[in-house]
Amino acid sequence: MNQFRCHSPLRTDFYELTMMQGYFKNQRDTNAVFDYFFRRNPFNGGYAVFAGLDTLLDGLENLHFQQEELDYLRSLNHFDDEFLEYLRNFRFQGQIYAMPEGTLAFANEPILRIYGTLLETQLIEPMLLNLLNFQTLIATKTARIFEASHYGSIMEFGLRRAHGPNGGLFASRAAFIGGASASSNVEAGYIYGIPVRGTMAHSWIMSYPDELSAFRAYAQLYPDNCTLLADTYNTLESGIPNAIIVLKELQATGRKGFGVRLDSGDLDFLSKKSRKMLNDAGLPEAEITVSNELDEYIIDHLVHENAPINKWGVGTRMVTGGEDSSLTGVYKMAARQTNGDLEATMKLTNNPEKMSNPGIKNTARFFDENGQALADLIFLETERSELEQISRSLSPIPFYHPHIDFAQFTMKNYAYMEILLQPVMKDGSCLCEKQSLTTLQKRARNSLKSLDNTSKRLINPHIYKVSISQKLKELKTDIIKSHLR
Amino acid sequence: MNQFRCHSPLRTDFYELTMMQGYFKNQRDTNAVFDYFFRRNPFNGGYAVFAGLDTLLDGLENLHFQQEELDYLRSLNHFDDEFLEYLRNFRFQGQIYAMPEGTLAFANEPILRIYGTLLETQLIEPMLLNLLNFQTLIATKTARIFEASHYGSIMEFGLRRAHGPNGGLFASRAAFIGGASASSNVEAGYIYGIPVRGTMAHSWIMSYPDELSAFRAYAQLYPDNCTLLADTYNTLESGIPNAIIVLKELQATGRKGFGVRLDSGDLDFLSKKSRKMLNDAGLPEAEITVSNELDEYIIDHLVHENAPINKWGVGTRMVTGGEDSSLTGVYKMAARQTNGDLEATMKLTNNPEKMSNPGIKNTARFFDENGQALADLIFLETERSELEQISRSLSPIPFYHPHIDFAQFTMKNYAYMEILLQPVMKDGSCLCEKQSLTTLQKRARNSLKSLDNTSKRLINPHIYKVSISQKLKELKTDIIKSHLR
Repeated sequence: MNQFRCHSPLRTDFYELTMMQGYFKNQRDTNAVFDYFFRRNPFNGGYAVFAGLDTLLDGLENLHFQQEELDYLRSLNHFDDEFLEYLRNFRFQGQIYAMPEGTLAFANEPILRIYGTLLETQLIEPMLLNLLNFQTLIATKTARIFEASHYGSIMEFGLRRAHGPNGGLFASRAAFIGGASASSNVEAGYIYGIPVRGTMAHSWIMSYPDELSAFRAYAQLYPDNCTLLADTYNTLESGIPNAIIVLKELQATGRKGFGVRLDSGDLDFLSKKSRKMLNDAGLPEAEITVSNELDEYIIDHLVHENAPINKWGVGTRMVTGGEDSSLTGVYKMAARQTNGDLEATMKLTNNPEKMSNPGIKNTARFFDENGQALADLIFLETERSELEQISRSLSPIPFYHPHIDFAQFTMKNYAYMEILLQPVMKDGSCLCEKQSLTTLQKRARNSLKSLDNTSKRLINPHIYKVSISQKLKELKTDIIKSHLR
Repeated sequence: MNQFRCHSPLRTDFYELTMMQGYFKNQRDTNAVFDYFFRRNPFNGGYAVFAGLDTLLDGLENLHFQQEELDYLRSLNHFDDEFLEYLRNFRFQGQIYAMPEGTLAFANEPILRIYGTLLETQLIEPMLLNLLNFQTLIATKTARIFEASHYGSIMEFGLRRAHGPNGGLFASRAAFIGGASASSNVEAGYIYGIPVRGTMAHSWIMSYPDELSAFRAYAQLYPDNCTLLADTYNTLESGIPNAIIVLKELQATGRKGFGVRLDSGDLDFLSKKSRKMLNDAGLPEAEITVSNELDEYIIDHLVHENAPINKWGVGTRMVTGGEDSSLTGVYKMAARQTNGDLEATMKLTNNPEKMSNPGIKNTARFFDENGQALADLIFLETERSELEQISRSLSPIPFYHPHIDFAQFTMKNYAYMEILLQPVMKDGSCLCEKQSLTTLQKRARNSLKSLDNTSKRLINPHIYKVSISQKLKELKTDIIKSHLR
């Protein structure tokens, strides 16, 4: 059986290869521009945290076909020798503009822009979507959980419910960017340097004749890092009383950094009862960690009920997204070369919300004097210098709704503007050093801080406005009209 | 940065390693038995299709620590030299009993049983859960979709929304077992030999000055395999009329195997209109493929409305599970060695549904004379010969509810019984050749056929009974009583 590789150009859809062969035969010199964007904020929330960029750039820099992969393609009797020979020498050599990883992104705005030959831009579509959709989903889910916990201590415990090995690994990476402080996944520590943490499993307790001996044995082994799992038999009647005995023994030897974990039952009720029992026993420093199918909604309730919880272990719903298990990110052609020039293109369809924005675009974010984000503007790169000039003088700028004619407003009273898409890859090579995950985590946190709290509400958030510029609106209208003719 | 490996023993939770070190120091010779089972049928459905076994066995046979991985563990200052030296020579050498991959499985019954040292059984927990939970989820989702389509032609198109690269690859594998006939994921063809298929993207159409030239160019390239995407501009006004022109040209040259794909809009309305237009144009052989956020519920409705659809392309919701994005599979200690004997263990907790079944168990499925499954019985291996004897004489057998005292019935009028868990790994080596995915797909289909249709209902299915034997009930009651003392 052939083996899984970190970066395989076969990680694509079959139709990309058949289209590539078609382009190769018919229009091999044509270039195109594609946008990556998503159509709906995940979790019916107010934002997304963009993640996965470095993983993608790493993949693109290392993308090449191996002999066995070419042999496989040949065996399908669908590709001719000339095209397979082209694939043998294939390297991605395109240009990429992207938002910095960790930045907040909103529905319908370009997050990434790719320029290259039709062949190379087509091949990488599934890989790009696979990496960015998933990590952005999980970074966003984690940011929601982190917000709900009031910036508490969040540990990602999801490997066992994640979607395959790198479903687990990339979830750990994205969760860290979104605000988790540690992961249980040792591989995430090994590959990404994420701090690894853990407590004990029920099986540890069950491997001993009784709970007290199991607790005591663990405390002897790890006196400086001892969180005792209290719910194997009965939390309040057995787990907490036994934990108190052992934690008092640890306390007597001057140890710190100990506590209990609650993994079932009503966590509000049990955390309050446990807190009281621990306090009454003279263990106010013992921390309470909770786990068990947590998500942002449950954590939000527990925080509002003042449940005395110090740490949150979040697994399944963080690493899968829970009820919203995919980001609807898409990759759409925005321009193609015609007789040497790049001509704007758009997908029309029968559905106005599914119409894409044409042309070579960027996204600008406008801030007030306190660094609070006011609204985003999608504009054409041809307008860039004009826009920069206007914004330097802080003059008013008209903002248009992406598809509703009469909805518009004037951006004024802003303090500064940031242009979000920056060059990250040129001719297939990364333009900058990879940043540490801690840097990306900080960026996400700062970006989250810039968003008004009403837009971060878990349910029914205030919609942050993403508008289009006047020139983009005109271009879009022209293309639609030309097709209606 | 360290690289991702196909099989890494670091693909585990940190607490497994800390517990392992504890076992290593305190009770290194103790053996234990663990069960893999899930607590709730996914999608609120009536069954699950067990998948992922061969992937797991492959991983276990190849599990070993590399020097850099040991160096990483050493750098955590948590593991001592003696333990790290033990890890250097670590190989999984346990015994595994499992249901054949592709078999239907139901909530709370053992699907896999692992016997080995506490150390090795603990290490593999997250890897085992990661591989089996996800693939079983996706095989089950696909089986539901396949059933809803009335065993139609299902193509898996999910790579771009899957959770990372092998979230995509393993989804393709599991979807094939569950009933998909092909995948768009070329890597799934390369690694697993799954047939790869695809049509064309909107970008193909948009790379040409107009839709008709795009269709014609594609038909010239792939005259024997030509499915034209009809919704880039306007399905009924442009896409289908242009497709008819090109398909008529193909028909005139004697070609077959062509059609259209609808990827947006109301698929019932559009498929009926398109079918009529194609028929009126003398193209009754042109097939209609549909896609766009399909799942079993949408397909069920389209089938009931007699929408004239030949092929289904299903992506996002098939490869992520959609609204139910994880299987709640767990790994619980069922017995541990005490003074040489294996003693039954169970997790009690405050929650009766979360109590595990103790002891070394197997699952038997009872069938009527038509091969229809009647009910499953979880029994102790110590009862096995007695059970086999009784079942050979077709004598009545008492079936007990797993946790409700008064709920019981007598199994009678059955024709035969099958014992589901069979040995698959001995001393860390696989006992049998890997079976082809086609074999697993056939097994899943046959297993599905054995289940009554009322238990396959998409919503509110008839609950298929999973009972426990009298001896298992007695053992469970004894352990609960001993803890209540």
